[in-house]
Amino acid sequence: MGGPEIDRLIGMLARLPGLGPRSARRAALALLRQPEARLLPLARAMEQAAQAVRTCSSCGNLDTRDPCGLCSDPLRDRGLVCVVETVGDLWALERACVHRGLYQVLGGTLSALGGVGPDDLNTAPLFARIAAGDVREVILALGATVDGATTTHWLGERLAATGVAVSRVGHGVPMGGALDVLDDGTLAAALAARRPAQV
Amino acid sequence: MGGPEIDRLIGMLARLPGLGPRSARRAALALLRQPEARLLPLARAMEQAAQAVRTCSSCGNLDTRDPCGLCSDPLRDRGLVCVVETVGDLWALERACVHRGLYQVLGGTLSALGGVGPDDLNTAPLFARIAAGDVREVILALGATVDGATTTHWLGERLAATGVAVSRVGHGVPMGGALDVLDDGTLAAALAARRPAQV
Repeated sequence: MGGPEIDRLIGMLARLPGLGPRSARRAALALLRQPEARLLPLARAMEQAAQAVRTCSSCGNLDTRDPCGLCSDPLRDRGLVCVVETVGDLWALERACVHRGLYQVLGGTLSALGGVGPDDLNTAPLFARIAAGDVREVILALGATVDGATTTHWLGERLAATGVAVSRVGHGVPMGGALDVLDDGTLAAALAARRPAQV
Repeated sequence: MGGPEIDRLIGMLARLPGLGPRSARRAALALLRQPEARLLPLARAMEQAAQAVRTCSSCGNLDTRDPCGLCSDPLRDRGLVCVVETVGDLWALERACVHRGLYQVLGGTLSALGGVGPDDLNTAPLFARIAAGDVREVILALGATVDGATTTHWLGERLAATGVAVSRVGHGVPMGGALDVLDDGTLAAALAARRPAQV
């Protein structure tokens, strides 16, 4: 429709997460209607991001600086490291303002089906920081999936062997969530993680 | 989060139709994770589209050629012109393979609230084609909104004055649609547009 350039643009937009063929067509049309005001600026923003953004060699975060803004922030607690699967998880925790320490982004989880083994995960910088004596506690904040639990178990054992304190995020009823829509696994985890009620 | 380049990219993606802040972050992360394989190719596809794509001076379609592929196709019925609001509407009709004539893209509808008057609509090429004696029938395929109906009425009168046959698309129950979910206006239009049943 309208030449290979338009087809290619729609095809590439449709592969973005959250967009399908239909919304990719709408997005492409919205951009093509204002090539100078919208399409070219977005293309330039993408090129600038591709040039500027790098992976932090210390924690695996994406940033224009290396070490990233979090790792080089003197106000962050360097003794407390939160281990997450992806940069998206790191962003979510930062938006929530719930962790004032540093991070370690694994880049995934152990996955037998996906062919992801221990060597594929970005754990070396964390063990280097522990060996340097910088780390007091490691919080494992991986997803509550089979692969996430496997990774938590595997990494927890390796970390405990270094003598550092290891914890994992709590499982249970999400805030604002009703019990009758939750799955059995979450309900079991919530009962197992019960606490004395503060009356 | 991670520098102004990432923030700008997310902000521009979030303004695309169909994407919000959350899906824009996901899309930006998916692109940033593979800058060479995904981010730069998409940026280049956008630049190429911005350079190559132009508005057809004959019908208002977006294409890399002017006149566009439809207007220059010798197999299309040049005597039958379908009037639509947007290029997206033209694409929808082309995907459905239901119109073998040419198009006229108005670029919008008359809108008192939106400040869109007759001079803002791209109708001149259509009247030029009619004056040249090329057009047998004009089909008004505008949305069944207040503004669409206003535009259909206004343009229908102007076209009828030229002596060309003028029709509008039918209104009624959408194919695959159940009656009990339809609004009163559609039900009224469907009853008014009733036809002898083919038993």
